[in-house]
Amino acid sequence: VVRPTFSDADMDARQWLCDRMLEAGLDAAIDGAANVVGRSPNTGPALIIGSHSDTQPNGGWLDGAMGVIYGLEIARSLLEDADTAQLAVDAVAWSDEEGTYTSCLGASSFVGPLSTTQLQATNAHGESVSQALERTGLSDRDRITFEPDRHIGYLEAHIEQGPHLETAGLKVGVVTSIVGIRSLAVSFTGEQNHAGTTPMAARKDAAVAMFEFGFLLQEPMRAVAGPTSVWTIGVAEVRPGAQSIIPGSAHLVVQFRDPEETTLERMDQVVRSLVDDMDRRGPVSVTIAAGERISPTVMDTTLQEFVAATAGKLVPGQWARMPSAAGHDPMVLSHHMPCAMLFIPSIGGISHDFAEDSHEADIVTGCHVLANAAASILRSQTSG
Amino acid sequence: VVRPTFSDADMDARQWLCDRMLEAGLDAAIDGAANVVGRSPNTGPALIIGSHSDTQPNGGWLDGAMGVIYGLEIARSLLEDADTAQLAVDAVAWSDEEGTYTSCLGASSFVGPLSTTQLQATNAHGESVSQALERTGLSDRDRITFEPDRHIGYLEAHIEQGPHLETAGLKVGVVTSIVGIRSLAVSFTGEQNHAGTTPMAARKDAAVAMFEFGFLLQEPMRAVAGPTSVWTIGVAEVRPGAQSIIPGSAHLVVQFRDPEETTLERMDQVVRSLVDDMDRRGPVSVTIAAGERISPTVMDTTLQEFVAATAGKLVPGQWARMPSAAGHDPMVLSHHMPCAMLFIPSIGGISHDFAEDSHEADIVTGCHVLANAAASILRSQTSG
Repeated sequence: VVRPTFSDADMDARQWLCDRMLEAGLDAAIDGAANVVGRSPNTGPALIIGSHSDTQPNGGWLDGAMGVIYGLEIARSLLEDADTAQLAVDAVAWSDEEGTYTSCLGASSFVGPLSTTQLQATNAHGESVSQALERTGLSDRDRITFEPDRHIGYLEAHIEQGPHLETAGLKVGVVTSIVGIRSLAVSFTGEQNHAGTTPMAARKDAAVAMFEFGFLLQEPMRAVAGPTSVWTIGVAEVRPGAQSIIPGSAHLVVQFRDPEETTLERMDQVVRSLVDDMDRRGPVSVTIAAGERISPTVMDTTLQEFVAATAGKLVPGQWARMPSAAGHDPMVLSHHMPCAMLFIPSIGGISHDFAEDSHEADIVTGCHVLANAAASILRSQTSG
Repeated sequence: VVRPTFSDADMDARQWLCDRMLEAGLDAAIDGAANVVGRSPNTGPALIIGSHSDTQPNGGWLDGAMGVIYGLEIARSLLEDADTAQLAVDAVAWSDEEGTYTSCLGASSFVGPLSTTQLQATNAHGESVSQALERTGLSDRDRITFEPDRHIGYLEAHIEQGPHLETAGLKVGVVTSIVGIRSLAVSFTGEQNHAGTTPMAARKDAAVAMFEFGFLLQEPMRAVAGPTSVWTIGVAEVRPGAQSIIPGSAHLVVQFRDPEETTLERMDQVVRSLVDDMDRRGPVSVTIAAGERISPTVMDTTLQEFVAATAGKLVPGQWARMPSAAGHDPMVLSHHMPCAMLFIPSIGGISHDFAEDSHEADIVTGCHVLANAAASILRSQTSG
């Protein structure tokens, strides 16, 4: 699925979705940030349920879209059933969660005006958000926004995008938090020289230092890691990058994720202390620069308990609490309202790939759990 | 100095040199491969003395040019002096030793017709040797070639391009051999995956394997290395090279040099055995492909002894025998005639850079030694 934000395919899909929301009896519109919002005709308290409908450049069919359809289906089916017809669910499809322009664009617009930085963010072709809004006939003055008196929380279902649920034979994951992410850029500065005429003892080889760093980092990271910590060196370069030239500089980025800020801090210290050790030892100078730094997002305990209780009833023994290792719109929304998330299993843990898939039965089960949890939450509010 | 082969600057320099050779009483011409050959009016036996006059893309002023001017100066001064006026020195400036199109092009043309591969070799702008010859009005049918009945050997002076002579306080290096070079490309194939959702235990991270390889290679290489062995990983890449993606593949090139074939073979085995170990161990598959393979070129013992004896007389205690860690035209010429080389010190060991330089006194001393060695060699022939 190739449906990046503001592409023709994306805008067509949003129009299609808006029509389905109208058919379901929702007051639906595409807002000035391309969010599709289907407002329940019922008065609040209301839950917002949905996800993002944009995809990665070469994305899977469920990443985002599944949670959007859950929102539509839950809003539709609650209205259809006399027992739940008075409950208010606003269905939503956010724009650009994947960051084709800038991550969580639509969710950001829902909770506050877009910043100049966000409006100037560009896609890979150099088009800015402002230009894309103009091209698609949208205006950030026409935002649909968070209503504190109506919206009591946000629920999102998503595929896990990892192998944990499948491996453990589980049907539902109740998300406890979205992991925090930090990245540190490490630079190695040696001395570029002729690979033939420079004796080994006289070298300041930046590549040798980079290899040593990448190797020596693993053991101390394992030592401080939590049970779900991950760390990755996805970027590693040597310059000038010719067979006969001793690299004068090299560069890598260490990214690490964990649900606990304290664990992130320990991993941060491991990276910094290896940098310091190697820089002190020489002959290559090693420096560090902080990059991305996203704090863990903790899911609302009360909403989480409703989802967990429903899972316990509908799929007993087949659910677990788990952190989300990938980022999601609640990273932005949770600063304004309680959020909870539910995961269903990904086949082979594959995502961000055409091969992404989930079993149909699991997709149905997840929706069933989230629908029942939503009804419980809304009933607890109206009866309270 | 920016004088790559067949550039306007290169062709102008060749014309200038040809005029100087004519003024020195030599029968000079630019041949069909852009070699400038100044033939002595004397009958043989003759020595060829020179080097290459092309440079690296951003080259130094002495790399090649100094040895060319030595050839001109030695031919000129021997003819000028009544004691040596009967000795035959043919001065030469080879083309494209640096491989702007293909390494040692001119020297190759001198000892045999250019191959189709050589004629089709292209520069960074995609121009082939054939096209460059046509553009510059040259034809490979007009080659000046090796005359087995006349040419008894080839002498070349060059800057060391390394720090050995300067560090040891020496004035002259008598080259024993040009080191052999081998390069081995090592590829790591793991599994590209999401850097957040893929647990550490499930990863097949090609970058982690590459770092381990680059680190673990150093110790066993040191163990088998000879006193002048060098090894370099100048190319190292991970793909796709994004912070949030576990690299699915990585690639590096190990290049190593030594004057002894047996040492090269031992180093080759170290690389291969580490590849085998890591591939067997997993989880990343590691494969190897042989690249460049140049055997060491041993300098002619007799010619070497004449140069050494002259150095011993003119700079006693200030010369040493040494291998050449960089490639030179004798790699091609030595298959057809005896060759010897003399080095003078490079300031700071710097070469292939605008900063390349040598002390003027050292340049003069080197020429003095080579001129006297040439005279001794030629006298030994005519008196024999």
